[in-house]
Amino acid sequence: MVELIEVAPRDGLQNESAILATADKVRLIERSVEAGLRRIEAVSFVNPKRVPQMADAEAVMERLPRPDGVGYAGLVLNRRGLDRALAAGVDEINVVVVATDEFSRRNQGCTVQEGVAAWAAVAADARAAGVRRTVTIAAAFGCPFEGEVPADRVLDLVRRVAESEPDEIAVADTIGVGVPAQVRALLTGAAGIAPGVPLRCHFHNTRNTGYANALTALDCGVSALDASAGGFGGCPFAPAATGNIATEDLLYALDRSGVDTGVRMSAVAETAAWLGERLGKPVPALLGRAGPFPAVP
Amino acid sequence: MVELIEVAPRDGLQNESAILATADKVRLIERSVEAGLRRIEAVSFVNPKRVPQMADAEAVMERLPRPDGVGYAGLVLNRRGLDRALAAGVDEINVVVVATDEFSRRNQGCTVQEGVAAWAAVAADARAAGVRRTVTIAAAFGCPFEGEVPADRVLDLVRRVAESEPDEIAVADTIGVGVPAQVRALLTGAAGIAPGVPLRCHFHNTRNTGYANALTALDCGVSALDASAGGFGGCPFAPAATGNIATEDLLYALDRSGVDTGVRMSAVAETAAWLGERLGKPVPALLGRAGPFPAVP
Repeated sequence: MVELIEVAPRDGLQNESAILATADKVRLIERSVEAGLRRIEAVSFVNPKRVPQMADAEAVMERLPRPDGVGYAGLVLNRRGLDRALAAGVDEINVVVVATDEFSRRNQGCTVQEGVAAWAAVAADARAAGVRRTVTIAAAFGCPFEGEVPADRVLDLVRRVAESEPDEIAVADTIGVGVPAQVRALLTGAAGIAPGVPLRCHFHNTRNTGYANALTALDCGVSALDASAGGFGGCPFAPAATGNIATEDLLYALDRSGVDTGVRMSAVAETAAWLGERLGKPVPALLGRAGPFPAVP
Repeated sequence: MVELIEVAPRDGLQNESAILATADKVRLIERSVEAGLRRIEAVSFVNPKRVPQMADAEAVMERLPRPDGVGYAGLVLNRRGLDRALAAGVDEINVVVVATDEFSRRNQGCTVQEGVAAWAAVAADARAAGVRRTVTIAAAFGCPFEGEVPADRVLDLVRRVAESEPDEIAVADTIGVGVPAQVRALLTGAAGIAPGVPLRCHFHNTRNTGYANALTALDCGVSALDASAGGFGGCPFAPAATGNIATEDLLYALDRSGVDTGVRMSAVAETAAWLGERLGKPVPALLGRAGPFPAVP
């Protein structure tokens, strides 16, 4: 059993040049819920001037169905974002701390240390508000500006963010450079540093290592994996590259490995095709092209 | 350390609608040797009416450079193919036995049992001629016509082909449906059935499981992996799907995992770009689009 977190509404859309209408975003999330997904990164409460694709976060949240057992997350970088997230009624927040100073400055205008402090500042208030808190360490497998990110540095950051008592710690291969050996080292190390805290992973398939990383993470006991319907979600630092691992392709591997997720692969593949039409782009995922196996009669 | 077998000249080209000129095929192989590859599946000695892309096998072999330490393989299905391969001076033959009757009939016009007999018939003569012999079990992870192929059936076939004393046994996911759990089961089983016989794997990335499968195979002690420069090589039964795992993308994962191959990733990526131009097709591999990491200065 592993929990899948559908991130297409947030990471899948935030780098797209086409800005989806609010109604389409709501439909994307509804379709994901219908497919069986129970955790969805629905919106981002960041500066709308910097990320116009997410400017309608409040409007999206307001129109979402709220069935039992389904939780919606909002990405938050600071106190102002948290206030918006709480007002909008999210079930969980995801706070991003970048592992390297240069990427952190470019991504969210602060150093790593300031990022850790921002996480600490929102963590307590989010907890008091009864909202589940994930902290994500971005660029944990490599940085487009600083190059290699030693595992020791990431694990030191795990130790520091763990002090603010997250409900979950995620490590993210933001630019899609990681390999399974790194996954194993980081997850084993993190489990030792923050025992009892569920671990989550976020992978991109930029260099065709994303699915191997995800399956390795599962093997290392990760409790949750991010994926994006259709594999949408490019990296602004690798414009021509594919993005997030695709929910339906990950489901293909999981289903055939006997790993239960409660999510219907065919429904996700249909959602991905629909999303490709809305974005006017081919679907990066392979399942829709190759078809399921064994073939559905 | 793992041995990579470059299969672009054979599996990469045999399904392409464009037929490459003999000189281009020779150049592809030369470039592969220059990149550090030491085993290359160069040609196929099958019926030229059925596979016109490989009709010039003798002409290709005749023009190849023969540096020390480099071995060229030819694919062979029967006695007639072996005679051609021996006359052309191959260093090794690769004999394909398909795991299911229907696929075997469509691919090579015989049943599984007849395929095993054909392998047995050529094995002794190839050995007498001093030619290295690989037997490949195709459709070992699933069949486009019969669906699931139980591991027991594949392992029974391993037992039967091992009787003719191959130098190497390969299992092939011909249509790209396998997952790491299957890889582990087949390789563990095969190692028990044919102890001491080196095992090799052939994967396609049709549903985004190819690289995870390759890395799992390595973890299971496989001695050799097939890959195709650029990831060319579609499957005729999944026309829109990507083909073989790409040599450069596999090298990216191996290099970053500290696995030695002796092959230069950048040279393979350049060969893939060149091959894409010759074929008039975009390169399926991702490394050429995303770039290496850390970025080369």
